[in-house]
Amino acid sequence: MTISFETKQQNLADLAVALGVNLQEGQTLIINAPIDCADFAHKVAAAAFDRGAADVAIRYNDERLSRMRYDHADLEALTTIPAWQKARMDSYVDDQVAVISIYADDPDVMAGVDVDRVKAASNAAQAAAKKYHEAVINDRIRWCVISVPTVGWARKVFPDIPKSAAVEQLWNAIFETTRTNLTDPAAAWHRHNASFEEKVRFLNNKQFDAFVYKNALGTNITVGMPKNHIWAGGSEIAEDGIAFFPNIPTEEIFSAPDKTRVNGTLAASHPLVYNGQLIDHFALTFKDGKVVGYHAEQGFDALKSLVEANPGSNMLGEISFVPYDSPIQNLGILFYNTLFDENASCHFALGAAYPTCIEGGQNMSETELAAAGLNISTTHVDFMVGSKDLSIVGLDAEGNETPIFVDGNWANPL
Amino acid sequence: MTISFETKQQNLADLAVALGVNLQEGQTLIINAPIDCADFAHKVAAAAFDRGAADVAIRYNDERLSRMRYDHADLEALTTIPAWQKARMDSYVDDQVAVISIYADDPDVMAGVDVDRVKAASNAAQAAAKKYHEAVINDRIRWCVISVPTVGWARKVFPDIPKSAAVEQLWNAIFETTRTNLTDPAAAWHRHNASFEEKVRFLNNKQFDAFVYKNALGTNITVGMPKNHIWAGGSEIAEDGIAFFPNIPTEEIFSAPDKTRVNGTLAASHPLVYNGQLIDHFALTFKDGKVVGYHAEQGFDALKSLVEANPGSNMLGEISFVPYDSPIQNLGILFYNTLFDENASCHFALGAAYPTCIEGGQNMSETELAAAGLNISTTHVDFMVGSKDLSIVGLDAEGNETPIFVDGNWANPL
Repeated sequence: MTISFETKQQNLADLAVALGVNLQEGQTLIINAPIDCADFAHKVAAAAFDRGAADVAIRYNDERLSRMRYDHADLEALTTIPAWQKARMDSYVDDQVAVISIYADDPDVMAGVDVDRVKAASNAAQAAAKKYHEAVINDRIRWCVISVPTVGWARKVFPDIPKSAAVEQLWNAIFETTRTNLTDPAAAWHRHNASFEEKVRFLNNKQFDAFVYKNALGTNITVGMPKNHIWAGGSEIAEDGIAFFPNIPTEEIFSAPDKTRVNGTLAASHPLVYNGQLIDHFALTFKDGKVVGYHAEQGFDALKSLVEANPGSNMLGEISFVPYDSPIQNLGILFYNTLFDENASCHFALGAAYPTCIEGGQNMSETELAAAGLNISTTHVDFMVGSKDLSIVGLDAEGNETPIFVDGNWANPL
Repeated sequence: MTISFETKQQNLADLAVALGVNLQEGQTLIINAPIDCADFAHKVAAAAFDRGAADVAIRYNDERLSRMRYDHADLEALTTIPAWQKARMDSYVDDQVAVISIYADDPDVMAGVDVDRVKAASNAAQAAAKKYHEAVINDRIRWCVISVPTVGWARKVFPDIPKSAAVEQLWNAIFETTRTNLTDPAAAWHRHNASFEEKVRFLNNKQFDAFVYKNALGTNITVGMPKNHIWAGGSEIAEDGIAFFPNIPTEEIFSAPDKTRVNGTLAASHPLVYNGQLIDHFALTFKDGKVVGYHAEQGFDALKSLVEANPGSNMLGEISFVPYDSPIQNLGILFYNTLFDENASCHFALGAAYPTCIEGGQNMSETELAAAGLNISTTHVDFMVGSKDLSIVGLDAEGNETPIFVDGNWANPL
């Protein structure tokens, strides 16, 4: 049976609404979408109304206007967030909306931008969205990130073919990785979700004290883990008890490291797009949890602005396992988009830890979370370190070693 | 000298910023734009930053999502405007922003919609925007309406040619009517503006007590004028003393009728798009200012919802003179867009009068304005009555007749 292009698009829209945010009848859906993705956003909106949404709003983001503002707007205008914007973000939490974000940045649109101005603007925006941001990382609302092609992004991924072919090829890669090219994507996702469980249980039972990462790229680091940490993967359970998938696709099993016990160097295995700027061939060195050195062959200023963005952006907040032999990695495509690249590779994040990654974390204050070793920040930026030769060894409190990853993949038997 | 398509587009963007809202250095510009007009909105944004804008925001409107919401959203969601939305509209007035609105509705997108739901939603939105609406009609902020083609609109105007040709032809009509196909559009606009002055002075000096309209379409009506009414046309002076052009193009000289002294029938000469619905071949009969009868060959329900929209939507708020032999009428194009069609034809508006159309009106309360004969409403919808055979006669208080329009054009000598 052949599944048409339109059906696959419809599958992705349906999947985001039904499994992604698990939209309930009478609930309102917010869709964050680039203006270039309006047609697909409409499909998501229609799927939401089909499912009984009370209302749907689309918030369009416009990266070309953002670039113009970074280049030309008054700094005060860039860094002053009107009260109504904060009220809007707060209302999303108060009204218990569901949020689907279509993430499809053009990796080149911010090339050469003044990173200090971007940092100032983005810190101001994040501060205004603090309540919303906390609701997201604590699963107080149900949210889902998906991606669909834009011309700018597709041309970056497939620079050597005509743009319409590039867009089509990127759609196909998205259909493949999101299982929306199958006749029953939801069933495939339930099977996929079950496959995470065994590994999550193993890791949660073992409660490793630390992990040692090594590869030929230059990664050589020990990452401590907090007491009572929790590994998760696939679907999550929101505060209201309803399951949802925060990322489509997802291939990762993740937790929070102890932010104070990170020592050594992490060498990136993939480029990173941060605030629209490409950072490539870079590495970060940590001492007692803090970045104490970094370099990048491309995008050094952007990397600097990330590390220096705000308190906590110079420490790790997420540790994540993805086998090198993963469905996304096997496509052999560099997506320049964290949603895909992070799911092709073991990764870490600089910035905020998810409070759900420690027992009782959702009921802890920021002070309590920090005391438990979880990083607090308004930033959360993933970067990829997984390679074909990556080895990861788990250490227990006595220093006994358990192989976790061998040659880039899960050790067998785990 | 040939002027390229791109230059004409640039001319329109520049004209809207420089003459339309007369953007001042350090001022913020809000652009209201259909999502399909993002590329042109970016040109306007760039023109604004070139002129020293402190900031530019684009508010995208999405008529396909609006249609879905009218069809499927909960009525409560449609009619409950969040507090932050009201705060946003209020902030435009408080912050003294300039507003350029790109008006390019698809005339067919709302075909068959439930007009009662549209009316309910639109009344709620207008109530939340009351302060903004009052600022606009009192020239407390500088605003400008322009139009650029969308595929949906262009196909309606030119249904018999391929869509890319339709879009191009509509662009050309817009360049022609906005004088942006000239080498110095600003100079042409200053000359154009001067041409209004003589007629405005004549009408303001005469202070006619009423006008009698007649034509073969069935128009036969007497429209009383309030004491100390003011005729205006072309540029206006905002509260801050800075001149601006609220409409590009504009060919009209307008004032406010006495809302209680309108008796007879007005037969529409052009179709009208209201809330996305087409109303055609319609007429309205008034007694002592109020609509006491109406019919429409197409869009009767939409006409009904307009007349019944809210207090004041069943009375006249604007009277406007445009010769039949006008540059827009001479193009022979039915635009299905009020910005063009109203400037091709004598017209009236149901709903709010502009307080600027009476001496001291900007400092009057709503009660004082109403006592002076000016209509108060949250609606303002123009409809066209000008025809090739239209005659308009001015009456003074003693009933002496002065021909104003003969055979659709200004009587000569006026």
